[in-house]
Amino acid sequence: MPKLNSHYGKLQASYLFAEIAKRVEEYSTQNPEKSIIRLGIGDVTEPLPAACVEALKEAADELSKRETFKGYPSYEGYAFLRNPIAQQDFQDLGAEVYADEIFVSDGAKSDTANIQEIFAEDNRIAVPDPVYPVYVDSNVMAGRTGLAESGRYEGLVYLECTPENNYLPELPQEKVDLIYLCFPNNPTGAHISREKLTEWVNYALAENAIIFYDAAYVAFIRDESMPKSIYEIPGARKCAIEFRSFSKNAGFTGTRCAYTVIPKELQVGGKSLHQMWFRRQATKFNGVSYPVQKAAAAVYSEAGQAQVKTLTDFYLGNARIVRESLNGFGLKCTGGDNSPYIWVQVNGASWDFFDKLLHNAGVVCTPGAGFGKCGEGHIRISAFNSRANVLKAMERLQKVF
Amino acid sequence: MPKLNSHYGKLQASYLFAEIAKRVEEYSTQNPEKSIIRLGIGDVTEPLPAACVEALKEAADELSKRETFKGYPSYEGYAFLRNPIAQQDFQDLGAEVYADEIFVSDGAKSDTANIQEIFAEDNRIAVPDPVYPVYVDSNVMAGRTGLAESGRYEGLVYLECTPENNYLPELPQEKVDLIYLCFPNNPTGAHISREKLTEWVNYALAENAIIFYDAAYVAFIRDESMPKSIYEIPGARKCAIEFRSFSKNAGFTGTRCAYTVIPKELQVGGKSLHQMWFRRQATKFNGVSYPVQKAAAAVYSEAGQAQVKTLTDFYLGNARIVRESLNGFGLKCTGGDNSPYIWVQVNGASWDFFDKLLHNAGVVCTPGAGFGKCGEGHIRISAFNSRANVLKAMERLQKVF
Repeated sequence: MPKLNSHYGKLQASYLFAEIAKRVEEYSTQNPEKSIIRLGIGDVTEPLPAACVEALKEAADELSKRETFKGYPSYEGYAFLRNPIAQQDFQDLGAEVYADEIFVSDGAKSDTANIQEIFAEDNRIAVPDPVYPVYVDSNVMAGRTGLAESGRYEGLVYLECTPENNYLPELPQEKVDLIYLCFPNNPTGAHISREKLTEWVNYALAENAIIFYDAAYVAFIRDESMPKSIYEIPGARKCAIEFRSFSKNAGFTGTRCAYTVIPKELQVGGKSLHQMWFRRQATKFNGVSYPVQKAAAAVYSEAGQAQVKTLTDFYLGNARIVRESLNGFGLKCTGGDNSPYIWVQVNGASWDFFDKLLHNAGVVCTPGAGFGKCGEGHIRISAFNSRANVLKAMERLQKVF
Repeated sequence: MPKLNSHYGKLQASYLFAEIAKRVEEYSTQNPEKSIIRLGIGDVTEPLPAACVEALKEAADELSKRETFKGYPSYEGYAFLRNPIAQQDFQDLGAEVYADEIFVSDGAKSDTANIQEIFAEDNRIAVPDPVYPVYVDSNVMAGRTGLAESGRYEGLVYLECTPENNYLPELPQEKVDLIYLCFPNNPTGAHISREKLTEWVNYALAENAIIFYDAAYVAFIRDESMPKSIYEIPGARKCAIEFRSFSKNAGFTGTRCAYTVIPKELQVGGKSLHQMWFRRQATKFNGVSYPVQKAAAAVYSEAGQAQVKTLTDFYLGNARIVRESLNGFGLKCTGGDNSPYIWVQVNGASWDFFDKLLHNAGVVCTPGAGFGKCGEGHIRISAFNSRANVLKAMERLQKVF
């Protein structure tokens, strides 16, 4: 009889969104006349930028003719996409990244989940708390943890993000090999300064650790002093892998495109991580859909850049309304300025606050406890919604507070 | 310092296509006036079916409007695609497969590479020889083999496919847990009868083994007596996972869509593989692009079905020409009738024959030795090309033989 991967048995069932759905349904059933506004979800709501739609359709036309038909893409992505990525997302900021260091993929989720595969089982892993669950679960599945107790897995090092440290984790006190960081952060919305990020890079260089830097929300940074890429920090090419996504800048959650940067000089014991990741991708991945890559490349056109700016400005406008309203109610928040998420410090348990918002205002948020131990006492509100819904939600909350 | 996945060091560098490219380039440089016809590659050449192109464009238009915009897809795929798959690819053949047993993905390569993740390290794996390298390499990377010696990895069980057994492997003599089968086969083009496939299913049931059944080339089956799905065989729902692709039926190599079937009653020690794969996909994958899923669904429309038939008939027409020509030259072949590949038995080493075709006819094939020990003495010719190129190539070979 085959033997199964026993590590799957350690995974905590992902009750968070199921539990949210259950409570919302109960409320709806009991209050069928009440309308519900969902501010919990991290999925975008506004149309794809026009430049991307046009590119998708042009690519479809190319596929319809023998002369312009496209077969298997390369594992790393087309040059027409990797070149503007390298130029506009990095070189224009003074960050040294070359087109051949970019691996185009179908999602930052896949990449952040798969990157651990090129490392051995016995590495010490540090993750933020609260955390995007994919970092944790992919390592649990690979056998790098023990069992979970009160929501924390034995063997992982948790980097606590709390009101006391402004949701910016401290450097680990114990030796770690691989460090997951996410800025602007999901779920806290906190962003890191150049000085603080420099401390992390210097730490990784000194301790021979690798940083997995998830910058999926970079398009929401408006503060010019803040770093957009870890490669703006000297030395990062020798210690960091960066993950980016088109999901949140250009609304590609349903279109699916992302990329990962592995600098060629990033080595462990003389071995190139770029080469190992290439081998991994060449064996287990067949590249991203041609029309999707064309749509992603359109993000870098003049029209695409303007449209993405409008789109992210719109969500940031929502975020500002949420944040200012909540501050007005006397609640402390982080995020919502350089991030689409507002992380709200609530009095008491996050599930109690969730119930309060649902029952008294018909507004759905995400209880912070679902993101980890340090998420307790917080809720996450997402700015991904229509303006009308956001305004109506804030009006209702006004009556509650 | 982080520790790397040391199993990557066991991987044999994939010299096959690099070596082909090198020899072709040398020949071109020395003979700049000679035109080269490439019959080595397994990539399609003809345009995407019109129904799929239309669907891609309509989906792009939907993404352009707030009312019809689509965010994150489900991990398993949209019902509009899973329903016709279940109906037309299975239920219409009398095979019991339900829509909620289908996992839509970005490629059969990803799925056949990733499926091993839900199993433990210490399973005994059987693979065909010659073999699609992904089955082997994904298990090497996961640490299920020892080192390679003369092209074979210690710890794997190789199922030999030779002229003596008509390229249909015998049941394993030793105990195995997981068995990779591919029919119609890449690279041999051989297809399996209902009787032989029943033997495999009965073997797996009796021995508590799981069959990974790769049916990526099913659209080329024209012999009505042959099984198109392993689920046409009684008992297969309790022992088999089937992989399908839109790459070769509808020319999606550059558009990227595939699916995997895991029946709900497929269990190991009381644990549901369907549930484990769902957990795997939910953690490491975010679903397939909405426009791509719409394009794949168009394959099941009346127009789409007719266009796919025309497309596969065209490639099969190429295959027939190749096979009949080669037979005419006195060469023994398999495949090319229910498969786009023709597997040719040559006299002597496959690389020598490769050189002969290249130097005397300017025709590029794939040396069988690149697919495994049993591939030696064979070459693979692909029918994925224009009719004009196929005819010209056969004319040139005529002069050689």
